[in-house]
Amino acid sequence: MAAPGAAASGEDTLIARYFKPVATDPGAFGLGDDAAILKEVGQDIVVTTDAIVEGVHFLPDDPPDTVARKALRVNLSDLAAKGAEPAAFVLTLALRAADDDWLTMFARGLGSDAGLFGCPLLGGDTVSTPGPLMISITAFGRVPVGKMVHRGGAKPGDRIVVTGTIGDAALGLDIRKGGAAAAVLADDAAAMLVGRYRVPQPRNALAQAVRDHASAAMDVSDGLAGDLAKLCAASGVSAIIDAPSIPLSAPVATLLARGAVGIPAIVSGGDDYEILGAVPENRFEAFAQAAMRAAVPVASIGTVIAGTLAPKFLDGQGREIPLPRLSYSHF
Amino acid sequence: MAAPGAAASGEDTLIARYFKPVATDPGAFGLGDDAAILKEVGQDIVVTTDAIVEGVHFLPDDPPDTVARKALRVNLSDLAAKGAEPAAFVLTLALRAADDDWLTMFARGLGSDAGLFGCPLLGGDTVSTPGPLMISITAFGRVPVGKMVHRGGAKPGDRIVVTGTIGDAALGLDIRKGGAAAAVLADDAAAMLVGRYRVPQPRNALAQAVRDHASAAMDVSDGLAGDLAKLCAASGVSAIIDAPSIPLSAPVATLLARGAVGIPAIVSGGDDYEILGAVPENRFEAFAQAAMRAAVPVASIGTVIAGTLAPKFLDGQGREIPLPRLSYSHF
Repeated sequence: MAAPGAAASGEDTLIARYFKPVATDPGAFGLGDDAAILKEVGQDIVVTTDAIVEGVHFLPDDPPDTVARKALRVNLSDLAAKGAEPAAFVLTLALRAADDDWLTMFARGLGSDAGLFGCPLLGGDTVSTPGPLMISITAFGRVPVGKMVHRGGAKPGDRIVVTGTIGDAALGLDIRKGGAAAAVLADDAAAMLVGRYRVPQPRNALAQAVRDHASAAMDVSDGLAGDLAKLCAASGVSAIIDAPSIPLSAPVATLLARGAVGIPAIVSGGDDYEILGAVPENRFEAFAQAAMRAAVPVASIGTVIAGTLAPKFLDGQGREIPLPRLSYSHF
Repeated sequence: MAAPGAAASGEDTLIARYFKPVATDPGAFGLGDDAAILKEVGQDIVVTTDAIVEGVHFLPDDPPDTVARKALRVNLSDLAAKGAEPAAFVLTLALRAADDDWLTMFARGLGSDAGLFGCPLLGGDTVSTPGPLMISITAFGRVPVGKMVHRGGAKPGDRIVVTGTIGDAALGLDIRKGGAAAAVLADDAAAMLVGRYRVPQPRNALAQAVRDHASAAMDVSDGLAGDLAKLCAASGVSAIIDAPSIPLSAPVATLLARGAVGIPAIVSGGDDYEILGAVPENRFEAFAQAAMRAAVPVASIGTVIAGTLAPKFLDGQGREIPLPRLSYSHF
């Protein structure tokens, strides 16, 4: 990215107009150079990359500010799950055309979240594409040396914890696609789920508690069941989940109660962007206290057990709930 | 990116099969976690992002290994121009489908260049798209603290220098698109130009010489004329270029001699991925010696002058060559 000078091209003008205000970090050089500087401050730099594609991760008529927020927040969610504090991000934006209204709203959403989460734009690239819009973000976070929280590390006996509520976003997408849930819910409940699909709530406030107490953690992006299976596989363990303990929002609880959706769909949905972690039993109370201070709702939903079988989800009577698929996969 | 465990999805299998071998940095954790670690080593981290899009930066039938190489090399070129040594990169790959043959060749090209340039894969994301393939790479380099070479910094009296040859890639693309140049050139000459379009030659061997001697530098990606104008604008200066001094490959010199292409097209093409720099007169000899030791061809093509006018390109008789457009712009 480069700000315009005597030779401002359309691309440079676009960058200066819309994105320079988001590039508040001194290392961004006002987007006026070919590269940025990420300062070393004596910590490890955590790097994560997530892209969102029109028609796959967002819909063509989603408000542009929500598209920007989602693009940044899916990356912030990874940083939070790794126990890292946000530092900065770079952006690749593939556009069909430079639409002023769309870009104005997109940049406004991006700038607002960059400020909210303390994660300024460092640089990036804008390219034209004849295809769907795509936003790829690489985000940088910082942790004390050696303190990144990994997927591996969960031990038998650890509690399985999850933040927020599960299944909202997948049902929000279902509603946006005209699925059955819309007919069951009041408008405001449906709108709440759609909002959860469009704008995830990354749990960056919980990063320090994760770093201090979790033996393993990841963010739930492809579905709770599949992501838990990944965490267990990386840790060489298995898990038992008490399905009634999985935290549900009121609209999803309503849909479940009315039989409009089942546990398998809720736990294999995707786009939750909550933190899934394992916390040793003797750290759980301190973790729960820290989460309360951070104002992040956390639920204990099960226990890590020895073994290499896929995690089991049990119903209120202790019977295993069959899961036909574990998670969303692109391929 | 995540390697597969008990819950391997198609996406995870794809990543493990094709990309884990390229992720040789210990901070990549074998692509088995949600994020990577970029170690701090007491230097500044230079961050650059460049994306390439099918149909825009490469053609659908370009060999997949060349697509991978180009995606990485356009970023390595930025690092070289900033005086930085490659450290690592992250990759976002938007694919229509997971085609085994294509991915095998793509990963082979990527791994080969990652080894060649000492720039391992740290992590990334694969997503599905109904549109054109897109590869976005964020690359990291290291420079001693405060030593990144900027676009600003050129001073009146500095020499304007450029590496390699200019215009090859733009004419290679023209040939691939069935343009007139193909009829003028022998097959091997045409193939050489197409090769320059497909696989740029980043000048990373010159990074230290740039860091030690250049007052300003950038890579030539959108056309020499436009990129020089950006360097001058960032430095608050102008420049006079002696067009006959611009280094041309034999095929381009032939096309120019036969009137099949003019200087304006050569200097406003794009995709050169050579380094454009300003070097103070009293450092030029040392710079030229260092370039020779690095086996990177460098030409002195003009002089920085005071002023804010766009740089002038003069012909062999000292007459200004009109340039209808300066460079390629996406929008």
